Amino acid sequence: MFFEGAEKKVEILLKDRSESLLDKPRAFWEMIVKASRAEIIGELRSAKVIAFLLSESSLFVFENRITMITCGETTLALAAEAFIKEIGEQRVDCVIYQRKNEFRSYLQKSSFADDVTNLKKLIPGEAFCFGRFHEHHNLLFSSETSFKADKDDCTVELLMYDIRPDLLEELLDPKTCVNKTRNLLGLEKVLKGFQIDDFSFDPFGYSLNALLDDTYATIHITPQLDTSYISFETNCESYQAQEMIQHFLSVLSPGSFDLVVFNGPTQLKFESDYINRTHSRQLIPSGFQVDFFHYFHHRTTSGPAMVYKE
Amino acid sequence: MFFEGAEKKVEILLKDRSESLLDKPRAFWEMIVKASRAEIIGELRSAKVIAFLLSESSLFVFENRITMITCGETTLALAAEAFIKEIGEQRVDCVIYQRKNEFRSYLQKSSFADDVTNLKKLIPGEAFCFGRFHEHHNLLFSSETSFKADKDDCTVELLMYDIRPDLLEELLDPKTCVNKTRNLLGLEKVLKGFQIDDFSFDPFGYSLNALLDDTYATIHITPQLDTSYISFETNCESYQAQEMIQHFLSVLSPGSFDLVVFNGPTQLKFESDYINRTHSRQLIPSGFQVDFFHYFHHRTTSGPAMVYKE
Repeated sequence: MFFEGAEKKVEILLKDRSESLLDKPRAFWEMIVKASRAEIIGELRSAKVIAFLLSESSLFVFENRITMITCGETTLALAAEAFIKEIGEQRVDCVIYQRKNEFRSYLQKSSFADDVTNLKKLIPGEAFCFGRFHEHHNLLFSSETSFKADKDDCTVELLMYDIRPDLLEELLDPKTCVNKTRNLLGLEKVLKGFQIDDFSFDPFGYSLNALLDDTYATIHITPQLDTSYISFETNCESYQAQEMIQHFLSVLSPGSFDLVVFNGPTQLKFESDYINRTHSRQLIPSGFQVDFFHYFHHRTTSGPAMVYKE
Repeated sequence: MFFEGAEKKVEILLKDRSESLLDKPRAFWEMIVKASRAEIIGELRSAKVIAFLLSESSLFVFENRITMITCGETTLALAAEAFIKEIGEQRVDCVIYQRKNEFRSYLQKSSFADDVTNLKKLIPGEAFCFGRFHEHHNLLFSSETSFKADKDDCTVELLMYDIRPDLLEELLDPKTCVNKTRNLLGLEKVLKGFQIDDFSFDPFGYSLNALLDDTYATIHITPQLDTSYISFETNCESYQAQEMIQHFLSVLSPGSFDLVVFNGPTQLKFESDYINRTHSRQLIPSGFQVDFFHYFHHRTTSGPAMVYKE
């Protein structure tokens, strides 16, 4: 059973704080999420953030900002457009829309080019490709307005492929509950102090949102053997993010991973088993310094071909 | 201007030699090629092979076998189906249909899964994925009949990405003619003794077929900077193929390459600048031992993001 784990993400920042997004009724967010073809399946609140767990990933709502991540065959760009139209284009300060290269892009409802064409009707901007086009890469649209990002506005996305097979076996077991997944991934340790909202999908798959004041973390697991993928994202401070990254690399031992860093440190240190294949660095028009790294484990993957399944 | 350089390939072997395919009229091949949405633009003959140069790659016709390679947005599976139906299913001994992961698979007219579904209506078989699904890989359908390939039936496919930028500049120059391309790639040396039929596309791009008795070689160049790709394929003996591979790696210095070997040696030696990322080895139902290797240059690719263009 194929599932497209690779995610799309949109970040939208508003100009004024006259009306906090935290005061919007749940029905508003249900409508936005529906536009992406996903559904809300969980809700967690801190004083500064509402974290919605979705049938395909997550939506984080701040006073004047949203961060929405969806996977599968969702139509995140449509949700972004719906949000911008509802809020009013004149209130929007910044839009960043990202799309990771998909495992099977032909199953998607739209191409990145389609999405950019539609977003540009609402806000001017420019699109980039981070990484080599025929290898792992991240496509990114950034609005181009007078807005310039705060230098402390950091985010780290860690996208891991080919997870340790023995761990996958446990994650694929339909009997594996949220508590067991937390244990397998050592989440109580790495997310100490965070409130957690997590969900085990049937027959497998796992999603988690975590909040601590205005800091969020989110994890999504696609454990299918041939296309295994686990993503982690957080806006916590970079020294702590670095510890978290090291934790996940140690526990999950991915065959390869991407790291996408917004306004982070120029150097990140990892265990020496990984080789840096690609590093793309770009100051995008919204003022974020974006680094994309692709790393892979130095071991050669060898064995028989996989039987092809649709 | 994006062009999908990554190729599809089909190899079809016939049971009996009662009617040589070499005797078929040109109109027959024009009809088959048309089914793939390509056109014949050149023809070269030896006593044992007809080599058609196509608007998108090549078709080689042998007494009781065809090898057809197409790129771009062609529909090679439809051409294979047309050929099988014209010849008669009962005359077909073996079908091998391959599809390299495309740079932009969503632009293709069909998915590999669609193609396999249709081929299986004509001949039983099994499909495989060589390489990791989210990295460079080759999808391969093999018929499953009583046919078993001759151990000496060798082919080597060398698929090279991210060609040396200084060479690409020359290849992108609309003034570059076939003679200059032959010189740039050192083809007179590597294809010594072969008859050559080559073509420079407008404004750029190059294709070559070469024949020497029953041996063929073919080269196709997509020089676009962000998605540069050059493929080379031959059925010559493996010691000579190895020399040719070493030649192209030295001249083109690709950032990465795949090597797909049918019934070749288990070890192939290259210059040490390349790291073997993946090796998939599989005996396929038609009796070919297939090796897929992905290698990349050990240097880290770093720099600014690319501006995204459709």
